Amino acid sequence: MRQEHFQTTIKQLKKLKIGTFNKDFLLTWEQTDDEIKAVVLVAELFKEMHKAGLSFRAFDTGLAISIFRDKSTRTRFSFASAMNALGLGLSELDEEKSQIAHGETVRETANMISFLTEVIGIRDDMFLGEGNKYMREVGAAVQEGFEKGVLHRRPSIVNLQCDIDHPTQSLTDLMQLKKHFGSLEHLHGRKIGVTWAYSPSYGKPLSVPQGIIGLMTRFGMNVSVAYPKGYDLIPDVIKVAKKNASQHGGSFKVVDSTEEAFEKADVVYPKSWAPYQVMQQRTELLSKNDRSGLVELEKACLVNNARYKDWECDERKMKLTTKGRGLYMHCLPADISGVSCEQGEVSKGVFEKYRLATYAEAGFKPFVIAAIIFLTRIQKPVDALHAIIRRNTSRTV
Amino acid sequence: MRQEHFQTTIKQLKKLKIGTFNKDFLLTWEQTDDEIKAVVLVAELFKEMHKAGLSFRAFDTGLAISIFRDKSTRTRFSFASAMNALGLGLSELDEEKSQIAHGETVRETANMISFLTEVIGIRDDMFLGEGNKYMREVGAAVQEGFEKGVLHRRPSIVNLQCDIDHPTQSLTDLMQLKKHFGSLEHLHGRKIGVTWAYSPSYGKPLSVPQGIIGLMTRFGMNVSVAYPKGYDLIPDVIKVAKKNASQHGGSFKVVDSTEEAFEKADVVYPKSWAPYQVMQQRTELLSKNDRSGLVELEKACLVNNARYKDWECDERKMKLTTKGRGLYMHCLPADISGVSCEQGEVSKGVFEKYRLATYAEAGFKPFVIAAIIFLTRIQKPVDALHAIIRRNTSRTV
Amino acid sequence: MRQEHFQTTIKQLKKLKIGTFNKDFLLTWEQTDDEIKAVVLVAELFKEMHKAGLSFRAFDTGLAISIFRDKSTRTRFSFASAMNALGLGLSELDEEKSQIAHGETVRETANMISFLTEVIGIRDDMFLGEGNKYMREVGAAVQEGFEKGVLHRRPSIVNLQCDIDHPTQSLTDLMQLKKHFGSLEHLHGRKIGVTWAYSPSYGKPLSVPQGIIGLMTRFGMNVSVAYPKGYDLIPDVIKVAKKNASQHGGSFKVVDSTEEAFEKADVVYPKSWAPYQVMQQRTELLSKNDRSGLVELEKACLVNNARYKDWECDERKMKLTTKGRGLYMHCLPADISGVSCEQGEVSKGVFEKYRLATYAEAGFKPFVIAAIIFLTRIQKPVDALHAIIRRNTSRTV
Repeated sequence: MRQEHFQTTIKQLKKLKIGTFNKDFLLTWEQTDDEIKAVVLVAELFKEMHKAGLSFRAFDTGLAISIFRDKSTRTRFSFASAMNALGLGLSELDEEKSQIAHGETVRETANMISFLTEVIGIRDDMFLGEGNKYMREVGAAVQEGFEKGVLHRRPSIVNLQCDIDHPTQSLTDLMQLKKHFGSLEHLHGRKIGVTWAYSPSYGKPLSVPQGIIGLMTRFGMNVSVAYPKGYDLIPDVIKVAKKNASQHGGSFKVVDSTEEAFEKADVVYPKSWAPYQVMQQRTELLSKNDRSGLVELEKACLVNNARYKDWECDERKMKLTTKGRGLYMHCLPADISGVSCEQGEVSKGVFEKYRLATYAEAGFKPFVIAAIIFLTRIQKPVDALHAIIRRNTSRTV
Repeated sequence: MRQEHFQTTIKQLKKLKIGTFNKDFLLTWEQTDDEIKAVVLVAELFKEMHKAGLSFRAFDTGLAISIFRDKSTRTRFSFASAMNALGLGLSELDEEKSQIAHGETVRETANMISFLTEVIGIRDDMFLGEGNKYMREVGAAVQEGFEKGVLHRRPSIVNLQCDIDHPTQSLTDLMQLKKHFGSLEHLHGRKIGVTWAYSPSYGKPLSVPQGIIGLMTRFGMNVSVAYPKGYDLIPDVIKVAKKNASQHGGSFKVVDSTEEAFEKADVVYPKSWAPYQVMQQRTELLSKNDRSGLVELEKACLVNNARYKDWECDERKMKLTTKGRGLYMHCLPADISGVSCEQGEVSKGVFEKYRLATYAEAGFKPFVIAAIIFLTRIQKPVDALHAIIRRNTSRTV
Repeated sequence: MRQEHFQTTIKQLKKLKIGTFNKDFLLTWEQTDDEIKAVVLVAELFKEMHKAGLSFRAFDTGLAISIFRDKSTRTRFSFASAMNALGLGLSELDEEKSQIAHGETVRETANMISFLTEVIGIRDDMFLGEGNKYMREVGAAVQEGFEKGVLHRRPSIVNLQCDIDHPTQSLTDLMQLKKHFGSLEHLHGRKIGVTWAYSPSYGKPLSVPQGIIGLMTRFGMNVSVAYPKGYDLIPDVIKVAKKNASQHGGSFKVVDSTEEAFEKADVVYPKSWAPYQVMQQRTELLSKNDRSGLVELEKACLVNNARYKDWECDERKMKLTTKGRGLYMHCLPADISGVSCEQGEVSKGVFEKYRLATYAEAGFKPFVIAAIIFLTRIQKPVDALHAIIRRNTSRTV
């Protein structure tokens, strides 16, 4: 019965054209529709196998490296869990402990850590124009190393959040939507409201909302984004979202208020972020090491944020969604008014109502990451999955 | 021959009623006698298998997480060793690296790190009234997550030392006593003197002596505790010890001097701790962030400690023990007079005489931890052990 | 075909007398010629198996511990990779996190971390007269623990760089030379110029040049060392190099200039180091905690360094090597003039020409470390390798 269910997934996978082997996974919009669907299917399969107490180990040995240039709990543990489940050992490159902070070039270090490495997961989301660039530098370095015979295998670089996209998050969210609506096809015509929300903190990355609008527009959804004046997203990503919408039969628009975005929305994603231009200024000030400029910028930005304290997701606004029962989503942790801060992104009542739903949403991430690693590292993924399913190994003795 | 020996252990295990599956392991006195005996038997079996070069791996994959809110060497490495031997991958939740220090609720984090997690080991022993409470919060959070479908499996929380008990230590000590006297039954009627000892440091947790008196009173031992005026242990644990003693045919009393506790003792456990009331004050001051109050308290406490410099375990006092050859025990590291400090818990001569015995005592800990994990995670532990023994896998190629 | 090639290596190994089991690996000159050759052969075999996508896992479970008392990227990741490939779990002993920094004796800690441990890798290269001594203390402690029944197995201590030698680096370099010249026999009569090079930093360990002259003199090479007045190496190591040279038909001499050392050299190894006497002074000042003395010493040392800015490996000097095409080697990271510093050890042009060669050189290290662990931990290494090859396990599903 269970085996039959697994075989159905295998059949669906066989129909897809998957060209992810030995490649990096940096932006969802660099992946074909088939590849996105393959990630979702493999992640689902892994999740079901885990639930059934079965192993989906795919490696005898091999190393996974993570580089976290920003704090992380859930992505860190999702990555660790995924690597462990696949059979890889995990080593974190802590830039303070290593010599990388002492003038060593990215190019050299990338090769030095990669001799027996299958995958390098990177979070670098702090500086606009920097994070994704850094990932590509690492990718180019290991590509050269592989081509010139330094490395036996070319590890894949996986984006664990950069300045532009947060693909493991948006794919996690996509799985939540698929589960909620029953299938990816059922996303067609559904409205999602992605709205800026007030937060007492400053400088939150833009990659979460950008990831959502760049991915959900590929499934025929009607995506409405709302933010206060000045809180723009990166123009290039807006272009991607528009293009996707026009190609996939959905729509993409920027509106002026949470209310407009929530109106008859099936899903809402209220989340704070810093204005694009502020992030640009910050990167400049940081590169000049202009400490007082940075303090000024933060002060100005917080004052500006405070003008939009009413951009909170509360019960009143939730009533505007379809039948007042739209799905609330968040990548966590949320700034919850009266819980984690005085005033924040979401009211206590709304959050509590959807709290377990957001936990369940997060629960897809380890499997999304495992699926991405699997698809970038295993040359014939469908055959390999077949072997894993047939093997039918229990996770415990 | 070896296999026969293993089978004897299996037979003994079969007689026990074990209800530890999917539960937490927080206080020894929350476990039945059978469960305590099961931990000891499984730990012995694992230790013998390790000595014989055999694997007792029980997991194909799976994650173990440790949260150390206080320094640790031996428990940290015991946990790491145990997890590795069982086949689990280890991830440490470093609260500085993660976002947990930034207002994220325990409830949320507990679920976020647990999607593929089998066990969460926690050390939180610094603040009276806090450590054990925190462990129960984490346990309640994953329980909710499991019941509401967020988690496929509910990880077990294992107490790696809290403010109340240090179960992996007291069980380690129990194994040392079993080895020393030949069987658990032979502990009956034996006297153990648990005595406060002078230390130049301040604020050592109470959980080690509390763990000892809470556990050894269950084996019919005569437990004498001695400490200077004011160095009380938590009243509730004293109650547990008294009740245990009356139920198991031993005795429990608080006496006034090391000499009285050592008199005809078969075992002595001289160890420093902070007074219960001082620890309470400290927790209060810390919660108010009263820095100067804390400095004052430490000063006052050290002055008070210094009045009891003669509470040292030395040759003269050891002569009072049965035939002058009572067993000296310590959880390590000890404050050794003239070695690790000017004056401390134990004289150089006494410690050196028992040094290797204390090392051997510590050597039970990885196996105790492995046994606890095994019994909380494996639904049919006896069948599984049977399979592991029959498998007879060498640890090396 | 591939299996045949592996069998050739096995045949070569069978001819060697290998007595490394259960021993430490601290200085190459404490190992016999056969043992050095065995490390090279096993490392080559592992590298070929990795390239072929095959597993050389040798452990079911077991722990490897690393202690890094100095920064490290490439050795850290080489060690992590090697442990993972062999099937060992890795735990780093971070002396800040543990209680080791708080007066606990090395003897005790060494045992406390070793109950299920196969290998302890140590980097301790900062203080002359201290690093290697510390490794031996750890070795003596686990030896005592093993003999007195505290430990079931005696873990091997592996030197990951000390004040005297850097064996995993010099063996890595030896593999690069073997590959470059076709065989170890072809090293005979080849000239290698090991030269001091200018660096804007201070206090680089002497162990890299010392490791090279202590090892390469055993293969009949003609080793020339050049350094400015006062930049002496440890006299005992110089003696080792002289003795090796006289026994193995090569030569060893100290010359006065890079030019002389590079003249008709087949290989050059230009690398900065601190003068022996300065390192001795530094250790003394540090033990007295003489902060101002240390500042003075660094200042004086940097001023002195600056007198030798022309000790750079540049195109002009490289022309002096055999046919102007001598092999440039470096342990990385190099101080590259105009790249990682204003002026440094090597010109930009020379480094870029050999950059990928130095990367490939570094690529031997994980396999060297794996080979050392294998040979110190597996009692019958040739039989075990036979089993691993016959097993023919793919690294991926």
